[in-house]
Amino acid sequence: MEQKLVYFFGGGNADGGAGMKPLLGGKGANLAEMSRIGIPVPAGFSISTEVCTYFYSHSRSYPDQLHEQVIAALGRVEEVMGAHFGNPQNPLLLSVRSGARVSMPGMMDTVLNLGLNDATVQGLIQRTGDARFAYDSYRRFVQMFGDVVLGVEHKNFESILHAHKAKSGKKLDTEITADEWRELVSLYKAMVQKETGQPFPDDPMEQLWAGIGAVFKSWMIPRAVTYRKLNNIPEEWGTAVNVQAMVFGNMGDDCATGVCFTRDPATGDNRFYGEYLINAQGEDVVAGIRTPQQITLEGKRRENSTLPAMEEVMPQLFGELVELYHRLEQHYRDMQDIEFTIQQNKMWILQTRNGKRTTKAAIKIAVDMVNEGLISKKDAISRVDPPSLDQLLHPTLDPKAPKDVLAVGLAASPGGASGHAVFTADEAEHWARDGKQVILVREETSPEDIHGMAAAVGIVTARGGATSHAAVVARGMGRPCVAGCGAIHIELAEKLFHVGDRVVREGDLITIDGSTGQVMFGKVPTQEATLSGEFATFMEWADEIRTLKVRTNADTPHDSKIARQFGAEGIGLCRTEHMFFETDRIIAVREMILAKDESGRRKALEKILPMQRGDFEGIFREMKGFPVTIRLLDPPLHEFIPHDEKGQEQVAQSLGVPVEIVRRRVAELHEFNPMLGHRGCRLGISFPEIYEMQVRAIMEAACNLVKAEGFSIIPEIMIPLVGLVEELRFLKERCIKVCRTVMAEKGVALEFLLGTMIELPRAALTADLIAQEAEFFSFGTNDLTQTCMGISRDDAGSFLSYYKEHKIITTDPFVSIDQQGVGQLVHIAVTKGRSTRPDIKLGICGEHGGDPASIAFFQKAGLNYVSCSPFRVPIARLAAAQAALAG
Amino acid sequence: MEQKLVYFFGGGNADGGAGMKPLLGGKGANLAEMSRIGIPVPAGFSISTEVCTYFYSHSRSYPDQLHEQVIAALGRVEEVMGAHFGNPQNPLLLSVRSGARVSMPGMMDTVLNLGLNDATVQGLIQRTGDARFAYDSYRRFVQMFGDVVLGVEHKNFESILHAHKAKSGKKLDTEITADEWRELVSLYKAMVQKETGQPFPDDPMEQLWAGIGAVFKSWMIPRAVTYRKLNNIPEEWGTAVNVQAMVFGNMGDDCATGVCFTRDPATGDNRFYGEYLINAQGEDVVAGIRTPQQITLEGKRRENSTLPAMEEVMPQLFGELVELYHRLEQHYRDMQDIEFTIQQNKMWILQTRNGKRTTKAAIKIAVDMVNEGLISKKDAISRVDPPSLDQLLHPTLDPKAPKDVLAVGLAASPGGASGHAVFTADEAEHWARDGKQVILVREETSPEDIHGMAAAVGIVTARGGATSHAAVVARGMGRPCVAGCGAIHIELAEKLFHVGDRVVREGDLITIDGSTGQVMFGKVPTQEATLSGEFATFMEWADEIRTLKVRTNADTPHDSKIARQFGAEGIGLCRTEHMFFETDRIIAVREMILAKDESGRRKALEKILPMQRGDFEGIFREMKGFPVTIRLLDPPLHEFIPHDEKGQEQVAQSLGVPVEIVRRRVAELHEFNPMLGHRGCRLGISFPEIYEMQVRAIMEAACNLVKAEGFSIIPEIMIPLVGLVEELRFLKERCIKVCRTVMAEKGVALEFLLGTMIELPRAALTADLIAQEAEFFSFGTNDLTQTCMGISRDDAGSFLSYYKEHKIITTDPFVSIDQQGVGQLVHIAVTKGRSTRPDIKLGICGEHGGDPASIAFFQKAGLNYVSCSPFRVPIARLAAAQAALAG
Repeated sequence: MEQKLVYFFGGGNADGGAGMKPLLGGKGANLAEMSRIGIPVPAGFSISTEVCTYFYSHSRSYPDQLHEQVIAALGRVEEVMGAHFGNPQNPLLLSVRSGARVSMPGMMDTVLNLGLNDATVQGLIQRTGDARFAYDSYRRFVQMFGDVVLGVEHKNFESILHAHKAKSGKKLDTEITADEWRELVSLYKAMVQKETGQPFPDDPMEQLWAGIGAVFKSWMIPRAVTYRKLNNIPEEWGTAVNVQAMVFGNMGDDCATGVCFTRDPATGDNRFYGEYLINAQGEDVVAGIRTPQQITLEGKRRENSTLPAMEEVMPQLFGELVELYHRLEQHYRDMQDIEFTIQQNKMWILQTRNGKRTTKAAIKIAVDMVNEGLISKKDAISRVDPPSLDQLLHPTLDPKAPKDVLAVGLAASPGGASGHAVFTADEAEHWARDGKQVILVREETSPEDIHGMAAAVGIVTARGGATSHAAVVARGMGRPCVAGCGAIHIELAEKLFHVGDRVVREGDLITIDGSTGQVMFGKVPTQEATLSGEFATFMEWADEIRTLKVRTNADTPHDSKIARQFGAEGIGLCRTEHMFFETDRIIAVREMILAKDESGRRKALEKILPMQRGDFEGIFREMKGFPVTIRLLDPPLHEFIPHDEKGQEQVAQSLGVPVEIVRRRVAELHEFNPMLGHRGCRLGISFPEIYEMQVRAIMEAACNLVKAEGFSIIPEIMIPLVGLVEELRFLKERCIKVCRTVMAEKGVALEFLLGTMIELPRAALTADLIAQEAEFFSFGTNDLTQTCMGISRDDAGSFLSYYKEHKIITTDPFVSIDQQGVGQLVHIAVTKGRSTRPDIKLGICGEHGGDPASIAFFQKAGLNYVSCSPFRVPIARLAAAQAALAG
Repeated sequence: MEQKLVYFFGGGNADGGAGMKPLLGGKGANLAEMSRIGIPVPAGFSISTEVCTYFYSHSRSYPDQLHEQVIAALGRVEEVMGAHFGNPQNPLLLSVRSGARVSMPGMMDTVLNLGLNDATVQGLIQRTGDARFAYDSYRRFVQMFGDVVLGVEHKNFESILHAHKAKSGKKLDTEITADEWRELVSLYKAMVQKETGQPFPDDPMEQLWAGIGAVFKSWMIPRAVTYRKLNNIPEEWGTAVNVQAMVFGNMGDDCATGVCFTRDPATGDNRFYGEYLINAQGEDVVAGIRTPQQITLEGKRRENSTLPAMEEVMPQLFGELVELYHRLEQHYRDMQDIEFTIQQNKMWILQTRNGKRTTKAAIKIAVDMVNEGLISKKDAISRVDPPSLDQLLHPTLDPKAPKDVLAVGLAASPGGASGHAVFTADEAEHWARDGKQVILVREETSPEDIHGMAAAVGIVTARGGATSHAAVVARGMGRPCVAGCGAIHIELAEKLFHVGDRVVREGDLITIDGSTGQVMFGKVPTQEATLSGEFATFMEWADEIRTLKVRTNADTPHDSKIARQFGAEGIGLCRTEHMFFETDRIIAVREMILAKDESGRRKALEKILPMQRGDFEGIFREMKGFPVTIRLLDPPLHEFIPHDEKGQEQVAQSLGVPVEIVRRRVAELHEFNPMLGHRGCRLGISFPEIYEMQVRAIMEAACNLVKAEGFSIIPEIMIPLVGLVEELRFLKERCIKVCRTVMAEKGVALEFLLGTMIELPRAALTADLIAQEAEFFSFGTNDLTQTCMGISRDDAGSFLSYYKEHKIITTDPFVSIDQQGVGQLVHIAVTKGRSTRPDIKLGICGEHGGDPASIAFFQKAGLNYVSCSPFRVPIARLAAAQAALAG
């Protein structure tokens, strides 16, 4: 049988369906699905992504069978739509669009009104009785086809139009008559012929094939490539091409076009929400060129709109739309983003897809849909992308802080942010590279601005609605955004904007609140996020499902408190050296390092002991009832002494020793590869007094709390960088001795665990031996990645980005664990560790502990817990739940 | 049954035998074996090493059954020797000595003449009719027992003797009469009582148990601990204690004592060789206090001795000794080191053991014994310790160089060496630590001097024979030694020696030739070793047995030539970067590094191309017919630019660029952990032009030789530091393209292999994937050790020595491969690599390639070859043969 490359849909039938996204793309699969369930979609057909793959692997040519299948499908479209492609009496017009497996809004090329020429335009006039509309469509087609397919620059068309306006004294497009448009079409075509050396193609079939080719080619244009990189979309997926009968929202006042969401994409509230324009093409809504009208009366009130709502002016069609949106949401069991067009009072649904939404909305919608009985808790948990929770965990503006509000626009993407105002995407990137936080202020944004939006901490636009490019992209990126803030007047050349008589220049600090739409002058203090409401409910459901425990990496009582609020179930990594850096302590630490001998070191350590003990008491108190794993000193000693001349002089002064002593000690401590040097347990072995002090501080703190406050604490003492079981044995003996001594001194008996990091390949490979001594393992996947791969994280920048560009790696192994390599060591260590100590506690405390893909791996590897930074705890909880569902 | 702790021997019987060394120690097992085969050994018994183990694990106490078993064995000794311990009429005297599994000469304590007291000394007088001998023995016993068992310092005895001599006006011990000795014994005992607060023990049984305890305790005295560390002797082995009837070589002129070797221990010549003293105790020979006499007439002639040979003065006993030595050598099938004593014309063999010998002698003896039919070739191969070949591979003095000979002593340990003269062991160590080569010049050496001997490149003694402490230890260490050089007069206080009127002061350069006995003023040039004669034969036998190939690590035609002479079967690692450092090239290399862009780099690389091509031609020529593995550039670029201000200025000048440019580039290239940074294939990927140039140079060189000289060459191109198969794939494609281009240009078709280093844990773990692309693996065990263990070799000094001291590691993992950890990665990589490419070539080119223990591991792991530095090739060949025998 010959391969099926083309899939027809329309008239209540379809060759494809929702399950065929990889083949038909998201849009194509949806159109097929909608048609199948009786939604009125204009008929059309999808050319599958396999053709795209073929196209790029065969010097941009098509499979043999494609032509024949397209012709056949086109016949069926003509039949359903009752019009004929290229027919001068009753012409069928077509749109040709891209359709990747996941939506890439605005990234690839589209051609509309395909099939128009001097003959068929007459048919369109006959059918609509509107010559002006027909010639307007014709000129739009020539312009778009010229631009997208033939590569003739937009400005060439603009200048012809401007010249005409100047000559005729007309200012607005709407003033231009049918005859004038007809004249302009001729001028456009002549110009195209001049620019390209070829006449503008009048043959509709030629137009069609050129349009299909342009869409396939647009898969590889730079902005699409950038977008895929930013969103981790594999190039191999390819795009489908959707060819569909045109319907027109701009045939007169019984026409309209609109975009709607079945629920509020910013808040998740269960309210029908959308915008439309009478007598307009769909592009007019999305591009934000005309300020759109609300669909519902409720929306009109909320947005303080003076323009009539669809509910008022087209009540019957509104009713039909409401019925359709319910059907769609019930069918897809998710919030839908629907595009529709009304052509001469007939409703056409052009597209539906799962709507993009803020994370806040995603959670609310998921929780509401569970409560509505539409989806299960498991579905709800699967619906939210764990990293997106980040949006909810970052600061919002302090509601009590004074605010100097300049203007209020649409609350397009929630959250608060302060930054320096910049006015172009390039400037945004430039400032950000210098470490500055910037707010990108634009008239409107377009796909060319993506790199600047990614570099900014927030976005403001003067034009465009809640479904404008800026709003959609900002929500996807998790950037706060205020859109359509019409009070702002940008003077791009001057690099400033003014609101009334107030002026904001490039570099001035401004603040935006994407949840209220406010734009403020100056910096406004922010406050921490909390888990409450639907978010709390959602996280509870995640906790019901997950089996991995989630702990946090925290070094202070403050961090411990935040982590507990975010649901951490203990501390997986408390880095004691972080406590060494505080101003009042670093002096004693340096005294210890510069001491001539052990007794000198012990003297200095005695000063540090009470401070560390105090820290541990604070941390134990915050983590009441939860396990706390404390890692003994890890970094090399030279990290505690400045390496520059001036810093060394200050140290010498503060300690009252000659600078020569400091300098010499720094030289002694110098290492070629400190990562592989005298650190971790190696320090603990060379200078046993350091670990003795730390263990004493831990045990004294624990005993004090047990005694004074009746706590139940099981401290977990962790030895870093063990590679040889003998190292652990050596230190374990000494640590246990200190523990026993302290307990005897305090008259308290408490349980404690002694374990180790697994962060060297040798430790993983000999985990069976190490587990004989260690009561728990914590995988230090940062160092394990460094040593397994032989890559220093600090130095990898010089080649890892090159590796990514050249596809030698797909993801940064320091972000998402290298399952193929480092993962093997984790598996080996888990298996070997349990072989000699079946009940050994296994956790992971590297950066990977907060990465969802890595968490899925750790779930499969059989760990007991992951530990991550406090702000990633909810992400880890959700990722762990999803991992449990997948497993 | 109760545990047997005590093993009797004597009178042609023995409880033990030669196979029981672990239990009875070397000495005890030999005594038992000798007794069993009818050699006249004085009767005695051995207390097993298990008692030593018990002693140290039970607070220095003995097992219950020991006492009873000692008493029983003592009874059998009394019976055989016809004398009774503690009997005043016919007293049996005993020696108590240590006896470890391997010989530790002079390291542990010994007590002789045990059983003497005021009563039994009378019996000794009766039995020998020699009161002076009896009291002399008695005072020797009191002194030795006081020193060794009771811890009374030697000087206390000396000062009593000196006082007596001063009072009596006598100068030599031999002038002292029996009565005087008796008087001195009383004074000694009184002094001991004063020093220890206890009377000197007169009870022979008390003396015996104290002696046994002292020997067990001496297992842990510092010099014994040091010696074990130096010689890798495990502490757990423990020592046995040998209690044996005393026989006396100092009862008169019908008595003698001697030491002999069945073959010449310096040259291996098959001649009986030994020294003896009339009327002396054994210690007098070994300690080198009296210059000994030769046993044979031939020896007397060779050594130009004026003293009578044993062959002359005791012809019958000499004949008996010759008969015994033949029997012993035949029995033990190895060269024997025999101690004997003649007591009143009766020959007693005190000890025999496999004689220490120079490596040259070891090889000659092994080859001769094969030719004599005494041992097999396999035996011969097993007899030589591979690292000891090092002695033969290092320079000897240039025979044609002018020499300023100061004096000639005994040729005690072969080889030539020049160094600064020093006069104490501590000074030797001190100078050596400063990087100076020293010759240690001593009156005589003692076990306390071992650290200085180890630090020196050569040793000279003024006194002592070829079996003196200095000679024996120097041979063991492989240090050249001239012993008994009587012309030298040392003035220790002045730090100088003179020979006639010539003076050599501390720090003056001198040269010794341990093969001729010459001591020379100044430095004498040396020349390379070669393989010839028995050595060549021996190595051929090794080659017949081994299955592992042995290649060399060589970067120049010169090194390649040496390696070929030493039997290398190809190059396993040619480090191309070494070629970059030569003066005429480094400028072009720096130009390449400082170039602004790729075209600048290519311009500089073009200059390097012909030079590298020339190197490769030279290397291919030397390695004609053997495989050559060439590793592409490995080190990070900053290694090629000086890091200091001044060096950078010079570079800037030589390249004609502002110093700022150099400085900036150095800053750009700086890395925190260069070992894990931008190096190896990562460079090759970022700067493909570098590898392209190198591959071009390799292929052009190969093609040129194939074309012009009809060579058959299969270049093996090796990509370093691969961790991801994608890296290899990326580079392989580019390398193969260059190879094909060059072959097309040259019109030559030749085979080449493309492979990779396995030097990262990730590479080992994913070897199945990597082997899909790589035609060979070469294990870079240096870097593999660094990354697997997380230890930077450059920085490990700060803790690895501490680790050794504290027994956290037993051997340096950079010297001998860490089989438990790194070894697992080798096994994994071998298994996985062969799983996808069964015929993959597997080799190893790290430092471990020349280490015998590692070679044994690589044999077991199933590698095809090892590669090591040229001078270690013979060691590797022998080690590989021994590994094949073991496998």
